[in-house]
Amino acid sequence: MSTMKAAVFVAPGRIEIQEKRIPDVGPNDALLRITTTTICGTDVHILKGEYPVAPGLTVGHEPVGIIEKLGSNVTGYKEGQRVIAGAICPSFTSYACQDGFPSQDGGYLTANGTCACHGYKATGGWRFGNIIDGTQAEYVLVPDAQANLAPVHDALTDEQVLMCPDIMSTGFVGAENGNIKIGDTVVIFAQGPIGLCATAGAKLRGAATIIAVDGVDERLEISRQMGADVTLNFKKVDVVDEIMKLTAGRGVDASIEALGTQTTFEQALRVLKPGGTLSSLGVYSQDLTIPVSAFAAGLGDHKIVTALCPGGKERMRRLLKIVETGRVNLEALVTHEYKLDDIVEAYDLFANQRDGVLKIAIKP
Amino acid sequence: MSTMKAAVFVAPGRIEIQEKRIPDVGPNDALLRITTTTICGTDVHILKGEYPVAPGLTVGHEPVGIIEKLGSNVTGYKEGQRVIAGAICPSFTSYACQDGFPSQDGGYLTANGTCACHGYKATGGWRFGNIIDGTQAEYVLVPDAQANLAPVHDALTDEQVLMCPDIMSTGFVGAENGNIKIGDTVVIFAQGPIGLCATAGAKLRGAATIIAVDGVDERLEISRQMGADVTLNFKKVDVVDEIMKLTAGRGVDASIEALGTQTTFEQALRVLKPGGTLSSLGVYSQDLTIPVSAFAAGLGDHKIVTALCPGGKERMRRLLKIVETGRVNLEALVTHEYKLDDIVEAYDLFANQRDGVLKIAIKP
Amino acid sequence: MSTMKAAVFVAPGRIEIQEKRIPDVGPNDALLRITTTTICGTDVHILKGEYPVAPGLTVGHEPVGIIEKLGSNVTGYKEGQRVIAGAICPSFTSYACQDGFPSQDGGYLTANGTCACHGYKATGGWRFGNIIDGTQAEYVLVPDAQANLAPVHDALTDEQVLMCPDIMSTGFVGAENGNIKIGDTVVIFAQGPIGLCATAGAKLRGAATIIAVDGVDERLEISRQMGADVTLNFKKVDVVDEIMKLTAGRGVDASIEALGTQTTFEQALRVLKPGGTLSSLGVYSQDLTIPVSAFAAGLGDHKIVTALCPGGKERMRRLLKIVETGRVNLEALVTHEYKLDDIVEAYDLFANQRDGVLKIAIKP
Amino acid sequence: MSTMKAAVFVAPGRIEIQEKRIPDVGPNDALLRITTTTICGTDVHILKGEYPVAPGLTVGHEPVGIIEKLGSNVTGYKEGQRVIAGAICPSFTSYACQDGFPSQDGGYLTANGTCACHGYKATGGWRFGNIIDGTQAEYVLVPDAQANLAPVHDALTDEQVLMCPDIMSTGFVGAENGNIKIGDTVVIFAQGPIGLCATAGAKLRGAATIIAVDGVDERLEISRQMGADVTLNFKKVDVVDEIMKLTAGRGVDASIEALGTQTTFEQALRVLKPGGTLSSLGVYSQDLTIPVSAFAAGLGDHKIVTALCPGGKERMRRLLKIVETGRVNLEALVTHEYKLDDIVEAYDLFANQRDGVLKIAIKP
Repeated sequence: MSTMKAAVFVAPGRIEIQEKRIPDVGPNDALLRITTTTICGTDVHILKGEYPVAPGLTVGHEPVGIIEKLGSNVTGYKEGQRVIAGAICPSFTSYACQDGFPSQDGGYLTANGTCACHGYKATGGWRFGNIIDGTQAEYVLVPDAQANLAPVHDALTDEQVLMCPDIMSTGFVGAENGNIKIGDTVVIFAQGPIGLCATAGAKLRGAATIIAVDGVDERLEISRQMGADVTLNFKKVDVVDEIMKLTAGRGVDASIEALGTQTTFEQALRVLKPGGTLSSLGVYSQDLTIPVSAFAAGLGDHKIVTALCPGGKERMRRLLKIVETGRVNLEALVTHEYKLDDIVEAYDLFANQRDGVLKIAIKP
Repeated sequence: MSTMKAAVFVAPGRIEIQEKRIPDVGPNDALLRITTTTICGTDVHILKGEYPVAPGLTVGHEPVGIIEKLGSNVTGYKEGQRVIAGAICPSFTSYACQDGFPSQDGGYLTANGTCACHGYKATGGWRFGNIIDGTQAEYVLVPDAQANLAPVHDALTDEQVLMCPDIMSTGFVGAENGNIKIGDTVVIFAQGPIGLCATAGAKLRGAATIIAVDGVDERLEISRQMGADVTLNFKKVDVVDEIMKLTAGRGVDASIEALGTQTTFEQALRVLKPGGTLSSLGVYSQDLTIPVSAFAAGLGDHKIVTALCPGGKERMRRLLKIVETGRVNLEALVTHEYKLDDIVEAYDLFANQRDGVLKIAIKP
Repeated sequence: MSTMKAAVFVAPGRIEIQEKRIPDVGPNDALLRITTTTICGTDVHILKGEYPVAPGLTVGHEPVGIIEKLGSNVTGYKEGQRVIAGAICPSFTSYACQDGFPSQDGGYLTANGTCACHGYKATGGWRFGNIIDGTQAEYVLVPDAQANLAPVHDALTDEQVLMCPDIMSTGFVGAENGNIKIGDTVVIFAQGPIGLCATAGAKLRGAATIIAVDGVDERLEISRQMGADVTLNFKKVDVVDEIMKLTAGRGVDASIEALGTQTTFEQALRVLKPGGTLSSLGVYSQDLTIPVSAFAAGLGDHKIVTALCPGGKERMRRLLKIVETGRVNLEALVTHEYKLDDIVEAYDLFANQRDGVLKIAIKP
Repeated sequence: MSTMKAAVFVAPGRIEIQEKRIPDVGPNDALLRITTTTICGTDVHILKGEYPVAPGLTVGHEPVGIIEKLGSNVTGYKEGQRVIAGAICPSFTSYACQDGFPSQDGGYLTANGTCACHGYKATGGWRFGNIIDGTQAEYVLVPDAQANLAPVHDALTDEQVLMCPDIMSTGFVGAENGNIKIGDTVVIFAQGPIGLCATAGAKLRGAATIIAVDGVDERLEISRQMGADVTLNFKKVDVVDEIMKLTAGRGVDASIEALGTQTTFEQALRVLKPGGTLSSLGVYSQDLTIPVSAFAAGLGDHKIVTALCPGGKERMRRLLKIVETGRVNLEALVTHEYKLDDIVEAYDLFANQRDGVLKIAIKP
């Protein structure tokens, strides 16, 4: 069998299943047979043509699978082992990686003085379904496999670990970047899958009061399962007012933005205490405005921190541990299941956010 | 002698010398006889009515003076001793202070559940010439003196330490917040007194390449004295292009904004590497725009950090040490001297930036 | 009523109830009527003469009480309000406090160049029952009350908040100093009250695997309630071996020492991964040995961090929040109750660790 | 030419020049033709048999050389280019590397659950002259070359960059781990090459007062060139007394141990302020004692931090920048030059510290 099925970006508005060659395995690679993958909001941007990728590219960046073949230099794993790899698969050898920013792999200068990429690209570490073939396929080639394969414990189902490669890693880094201290008050704006994981992350870091904001009551229900103490439906209350009341005028210690809009960004800033941190996870498609009043004219000792999903096998190992020990249970986020063959239909459901969909398990 | 001369804000456009009562000394206060003070850009905003203070208030927030009288609870100092106090004089007892943000003293909730201030005020720790009488006078009352008086070594002149209370503390925190590591490339936008101190601060933290940006060549000359390796006059070159060339496309590790305008803020962001820190010192008078391209759509692992001048006697002790040991020499920044009686004239010179003025020593 | 009952240190081996004058209230003080207090291991050291205090001093440092009288400078509280104060009551104005080490208040130089204390004293911030009269009495005077009083929510019982002033603050700082990251493996040596709180703290910070070590199975039962995933009785297993097996030879990310002996300190070091942190909470009465093998000859990127209980009203506010929101429930630690009049008996029980005692509520 | 000369460890007491095969170049390797290398204190331990390596191993770990041949997977470099590589050459792909401790590469668990090394080894990242052939040879094979080769600017001599791979990186991390803040007082114990670099590092981080301690006045002279403000010869003064006087009883903010003995470690602790950091660089050959008095019984908020030399091309790039911009000039440390053929003689000079030797340039 030398070909496989893969979900391929053809043109804006069109992702379809095609037959493709199963890739060759280089010395530093691993070939995975995908058992479960999923669709991300970014994939919908790709589908719509809002984020450009090369026509013919296989999309998807969240792999759970079985090692089919290991490159000759890759040690410590065996074929047949079930693994995941991060959505972001850094080489860990570049300047950016060694400088503490593996997700920005490729965004820095190479040794000979030229830039590693044509045009500046902050998301250099993201390769699957961006600059190399992705995971919505029967097989995927993992580059720099030594740095990126993370074995999955037999006791865990694919569904239990499906969030680790992207959603959980991203949501958690939102909490981590918020510099949460024991006893903090934290608010998370938007409770999609990433916001829900940020909510769980805030709980894990010791926040005493967690406020979740969304416009869908069903999601706010799940927020409570993830650790929210207070939920606010922005369609029903003035969120800024309510939070300032809840904190008796103090503001929150950290606010996490998990959507990528002016409104949520601005509200996140307005409820922040002097000295507080706005941890931003959203992908913004338009210029942002910082209102001078919300920013205390630049004198508020505020921090604004952005992040791209952390990857690598050590990050994955830690997230798998959190799942294994039951600290956080994200199965509630996998609301639907589709066959790879039916992925066009799955995209349609997900893009239109029908039927209470949060995440869809895709099975080749 | 129960009255003194003081520079008083009367109305927008009018600061004038008036006779005022010398204040009484409470148990936690100290009365200083001012020997030297100075005018700050913020005072010009007050003069112009752009930053509102109560009519009748004595302005100024940078004191060098002699302890005239100590409150009954203040120990470890003696009358006749020469001291400085920070422009920001925190109590160090409030929630904000104990939470790590003494400059934001007063900006947090009080114990009984109401806010410490009418309306949100991020600058709660700034009291001299803002909410209590300031230093452009023959005497000033220092509140919470135990926490704020810093003795000055006899070998130092008033001029040598005149920058410590505000300009040096602010400029240095710009470098400190930039999280500079040994070998970093750092750019500082605007080389007024604070930008020049930020330049000196970047050198102190171990930056290998320091780029100073301004539009006045005379200032850029002083930048070199403060440690700049490269100077760029924005009237002569495209600053962003030039910095990207200097860093071979990598961008800078930290950029420090020391003016408070959209242009400098935006350029500071555009030249930042993925993972870099924008340390903002400017006081912004208008809403800011973050261009989505400069912000890598929120995926660049960027940090934006703002600051209000750190105060307190420990901060002042450290800055005085830097002056004492000759690590940094800021005398070049004191370009003019005026008598307190002539302060109206001094304001006029300073507000109009005539005659190469950087800072003016005011002598009562 | 001008006198009160107080537990007074008379001589080694003798703490007894005496009548004492109720203290006068200075401008920065508050007088509390104690409703509940407790006995600490340190008090037993004082009783035995192992830690010297002045004869005649009232012992105890963990106050829950009602504000009887406020000093004239103390604002934001009202008489009749129920409050706690930290075991450590820093002024927050000293050099050490402003330098980030309020617990070491008094341990640094004063402004006039002499040391704040006769002889070096690292525990400068600890005043109650150490250098001023303590809390095992009907009344206690809280110094620097503005910085130290923390109001207690009506819904909480004295017992629920009795651990906040010392045990909980100390245990939690053990976890905080361990620099725990999401997914870490953490071990806590000794499960007395402080070790149990460190266990709860490790859970709060996001550890995935928490190992608790003690020699008493009953305590290890409570460890599980506090969040331990694995418990090891050092009387039954080789602790170092077991932990290295549990971590597959990797070692733990952080180990917390909560006893103060050579054995626990050394084991804490032996199980530490290269790059790990040993967070020490114990009070050591003898010189410690660092075996060169456990220390990787000084090449292991190890950190050893010690701590003295953090105090102040902001710290107390955060701990009270954790209790209020039910994140941690420490009532199981209060195993006994005695009247102040019977405190000699309570000391006897506690010093001899009879009857499964963990902490004793003392009621005046 | 298929053989080369190499300095080989034969048996304790015997390192000698032998002919060896020039190694083959694998896909991730680079072969360097050494132009300059040097002898380290660790090499003397190897020579004496105090640190065991396999007989037949080529010693040395500080390469300056020309790329002779690149592996097929290594990009961004070209043959003929002059480069250095760190003494520690991590893969950057292991768990330890991704966890923030690249110098401990190999010290953690592998993916399949077994330990990466037989027996615990904290120095897993150190390969040259430890577990693979080293640099005191005509050629050396650099593993994981993509992560470790750092190009050297044409304007710099070999001697100017010879300290970067080990001495400078180690000395600087001593200062970095000391968590030095602007205005700090820092003491460095021992002024051998590493201690001198730690002194330079303390200056680079903004210390206001730098105290250097050694027993050789000639070295203390060089300390002043490296930035020391005060030098103390321990043969002439009581070091602890003197430092406590210099700091008026406050103690130092950071003390750096750069020798590896009980005396220096203990003194470093005795002069430390409560809250201060002891940054240890020494390689200890015996158990250490922590005197309980110097340790404040574990209550002093002290930190003890150890380190192994950071490596990797990003670290090297930063150090090279510091040399290039003239921030630090370490040429004074290269006191002697020998041909590789005469290395036995060079070892003799260096091991016996004759003739004021600090570091020796070895030229194949």
